[in-house]
Amino acid sequence: MKEFEFIAIARDLFKSRKKEVVYGAGDDDCAVIKLNDRYLVLSSDMLHEQSDFPKIMTPFEIGWMSVAVNFSDLAGSGVKPEYFIFDICLREGIEDSFEEILKGVKALCDRYDAEVVGGDVDFGDELFIVGFALGFSDRVVVQSGAKAGDRVYITGLTGKSQLALEYYLKGYDREEIPFVSSLVMPEPKVKEGLMLTHTANSMTDISDSLAVSLHNIASRSNVCIEIEAMDLSELLEFVDYDKALELFLYGGGDFELVFTSDSEPEVGIEIGRVREGKGVHILDDIKRTVEFRGYSHF
Amino acid sequence: MKEFEFIAIARDLFKSRKKEVVYGAGDDDCAVIKLNDRYLVLSSDMLHEQSDFPKIMTPFEIGWMSVAVNFSDLAGSGVKPEYFIFDICLREGIEDSFEEILKGVKALCDRYDAEVVGGDVDFGDELFIVGFALGFSDRVVVQSGAKAGDRVYITGLTGKSQLALEYYLKGYDREEIPFVSSLVMPEPKVKEGLMLTHTANSMTDISDSLAVSLHNIASRSNVCIEIEAMDLSELLEFVDYDKALELFLYGGGDFELVFTSDSEPEVGIEIGRVREGKGVHILDDIKRTVEFRGYSHF
Repeated sequence: MKEFEFIAIARDLFKSRKKEVVYGAGDDDCAVIKLNDRYLVLSSDMLHEQSDFPKIMTPFEIGWMSVAVNFSDLAGSGVKPEYFIFDICLREGIEDSFEEILKGVKALCDRYDAEVVGGDVDFGDELFIVGFALGFSDRVVVQSGAKAGDRVYITGLTGKSQLALEYYLKGYDREEIPFVSSLVMPEPKVKEGLMLTHTANSMTDISDSLAVSLHNIASRSNVCIEIEAMDLSELLEFVDYDKALELFLYGGGDFELVFTSDSEPEVGIEIGRVREGKGVHILDDIKRTVEFRGYSHF
Repeated sequence: MKEFEFIAIARDLFKSRKKEVVYGAGDDDCAVIKLNDRYLVLSSDMLHEQSDFPKIMTPFEIGWMSVAVNFSDLAGSGVKPEYFIFDICLREGIEDSFEEILKGVKALCDRYDAEVVGGDVDFGDELFIVGFALGFSDRVVVQSGAKAGDRVYITGLTGKSQLALEYYLKGYDREEIPFVSSLVMPEPKVKEGLMLTHTANSMTDISDSLAVSLHNIASRSNVCIEIEAMDLSELLEFVDYDKALELFLYGGGDFELVFTSDSEPEVGIEIGRVREGKGVHILDDIKRTVEFRGYSHF
């Protein structure tokens, strides 16, 4: 079974019952609960050494990353992270790095004036960090809001993190890896997400790949997305066009946002349009279908 | 370093800054955030196979337990759990049990009309489940509210789970283990906690041991606690008095609540009183000091 099959089981079992639950298990990037006058928005992600922390990451970067994945989910909903809770399982040999990991957590929380309010410390054979982030908003942007006529935007070029990962896996030293900070200390697009709370019709962060995020928007909004233009020059400095396109569409680990809007957004690079229909296509030399695939772990 | 030393590092680093944060990292059982007219109360706990799931537990019970530890934290604050999020790391060989684990999660959530609103599925070498529960309340009972003159109560006899664990570790079959349900499928005292929201001056759940919980109340409230009476007969069917007292005071894994009150509570077994002073004492044949120790994992 694959991850999405497990998620499908969970979604079936945990169908929302309470009327306050606007988006529940498996519905969108975050859980959304209606309070009196606003929404409570919740996100959680589990990271562990084996899949999520390349050995070149410092303890500070590990802590930072554990916050970044959660803040990125909230950013993709146009919501500011306010509070963070994290549970950590330490293993032998890493205990001395505890404070550095925490400093990484704190640095990214401080950057967006979010506060760590709790957590749990445990001990085992592998480093695990599980984060919970929450925020409040008067509007939540979800994947299902795209409309025919919208333009499609990204906050930055995707594929950099995947390229960095491939250099890492080939054994390059940290200082030789292009875009290494995309891999080890990504910046969640919190500011950009907040600028878009009221101008984006649909939005999500890009974690598995741009292709997966676009497919999610297209299928949940019941529309077709066409990619028309993209400037891959930053990637083309290192790889040929076909590889650059592969990285751009299917590379994982970027912390960019993708969104659609029918007005002029304050931020974002236009890459395409939303039409009536289904699926995700790319209009380069030949019109191709964008596959539903990506990379979520190294 | 021990767990509390790590927690001390975290508490120092994550001192509360926002005025809405009534209790933050390391302050009490739960994080407490002031909303307009009520409190948002948050709890999180990490469980994993190696330390928290004896092999006799079924997948259903593992799911149940992952909810129970979090609901118990909220119950100990007098708060009803409303929403639950959980992240699970599956290992090879346990994937077929996924749905049963989820059914255990759902069973305990349904029991208290709480709803699962999100989570994450991951894969690794060991089963990890990390839960995050939240609720709302107009009052939150904390450890620091005990007053000289209060009486001390527990919701049920402690030591049963530890006794069951010792039988398990000696190799007894499941059906031969006394109080086995205390070990594998404990009932968090949600109903009792809610009855006490407005009558308890201080309260906490008992996870490491009654001794640890009493010491936390005593030191945070700046009072002395004296244990005067306890009916250990359920334990005395299996062990002698000294062992029963050891289990009662220092056994871990019970999901009871301990609280203090200056009025007549609707629920609870009176075991002692709060005086001015410091520390925790037991007034049996000889007046002894209760040590600060317990068992948190098997």
